[in-house]
Amino acid sequence: MEDSLARPPSPAGLSCYVAISQFLGLTVIAMTGAWMGQFRGGIAWQSLLEFNVHPLCMIIGMVFLQGDALLVYRVFRNESKRSTKILHGLLHVLALVIALVGLIAVFDYHRKNNFADMYSLHSWCGISAFSLYFIQWLMGFSFFLFPGASFSLRNKYKSHHVFFGIFLLILSIATCLLGIKELLLFSIKTTYSSFVPEGILANVLGLLLITFGLLIGYILTRDEWKRPPLAEELALSMDFKNLTEGESPSGSQ
Amino acid sequence: MEDSLARPPSPAGLSCYVAISQFLGLTVIAMTGAWMGQFRGGIAWQSLLEFNVHPLCMIIGMVFLQGDALLVYRVFRNESKRSTKILHGLLHVLALVIALVGLIAVFDYHRKNNFADMYSLHSWCGISAFSLYFIQWLMGFSFFLFPGASFSLRNKYKSHHVFFGIFLLILSIATCLLGIKELLLFSIKTTYSSFVPEGILANVLGLLLITFGLLIGYILTRDEWKRPPLAEELALSMDFKNLTEGESPSGSQ
Repeated sequence: MEDSLARPPSPAGLSCYVAISQFLGLTVIAMTGAWMGQFRGGIAWQSLLEFNVHPLCMIIGMVFLQGDALLVYRVFRNESKRSTKILHGLLHVLALVIALVGLIAVFDYHRKNNFADMYSLHSWCGISAFSLYFIQWLMGFSFFLFPGASFSLRNKYKSHHVFFGIFLLILSIATCLLGIKELLLFSIKTTYSSFVPEGILANVLGLLLITFGLLIGYILTRDEWKRPPLAEELALSMDFKNLTEGESPSGSQ
Repeated sequence: MEDSLARPPSPAGLSCYVAISQFLGLTVIAMTGAWMGQFRGGIAWQSLLEFNVHPLCMIIGMVFLQGDALLVYRVFRNESKRSTKILHGLLHVLALVIALVGLIAVFDYHRKNNFADMYSLHSWCGISAFSLYFIQWLMGFSFFLFPGASFSLRNKYKSHHVFFGIFLLILSIATCLLGIKELLLFSIKTTYSSFVPEGILANVLGLLLITFGLLIGYILTRDEWKRPPLAEELALSMDFKNLTEGESPSGSQ
């Protein structure tokens, strides 16, 4: 408790942007649920409703949880690096598991209804995003949590890990936009141009998804909001620097 | 000539990535032309073919030229800051004009055929991207080319200008993906799932657009590839620093 009093508070702007991003993320999930519930008959693991599990799981996993996993270094800036890393990794696991349920739902729905798989741009982007996300997780685990990688190797990989992490969130959001468009043109193609409520709801959902990505990207790329290294990490990294090849460690993530 | 010999060459990795990005950008334009020419009947300002002007212009303007405009500070790293700025601004003007022709084509095509406007997610994203791109250009011109803005104001706005520039390229590419999907589902909906050549061509085009954006983003976000300030700019900015409020100028863009 005494220790936490000595730690600097989060920048006010950061807390505000994080709060808006969470509100937006939850709104996007609620709107997807409302779309499936109000206009597509609800969600179930049987019958035609099995398809509706897919959009909801992908939005929760590949957008909301993936985005939140990227924010942990900004939000929990006064916790130890190791705890924050573990939380980052666990949130990504949760995102991957929920997205996997969403993928199983759509493949199972296609199989039961004899629909073709993997022909659309949405499916090509989606399977690329999911596979690359899994590979990114494995790489992150091997470099940063598994105790084998050297300090200099971690430092070299880090900027690529961060860049590809943001790219994968963008690719996931773009895939969701394609999915929204696909579902609309398969379900309300003839009435979409009359500005029916379902079309407007789905369009607004698309714009909010983009805004969510924009906010997460903004929070992650502000230099002044990056996690500063804690005092004990600085001391440790100075010892490490003296012991190893003399490279300067970068504490902010 | 003697002066240019004294200037450091571009990093080898940067030249290689820029070359690949240009090859990809031109491939994407050629593929869009091939799609319109081979499968959609060609391009003209009359008849139903007027629509086909739209995808080609948007890809050239909002993707290729917009992307290239972002690269000028990396590619022309030994030219004066002012010349590079002017080139950056002019490439964006060219991109805006070509995109405007593409927009006029699609609105005119809709009007002639009594099709509804502005109901789809693609159109909402597209009009947002174009309007924000125009606003971004005006802001950039006012802050960086028009001689009114103070040194400290320019410095404060610069990181936001760069962030929103990259965001607008991403939004433009996402809008193109939605456009590809829309055109496919309006033209080959019944055969798309049979992996017909047009569907595969358009899907590959979508993946290449994403790769183009990925490459541009990678080049722009490598710290070691940022434009270093030239010797004369450093000297000038030191004078300026002494004369004004003492803020440190950041030469890299």
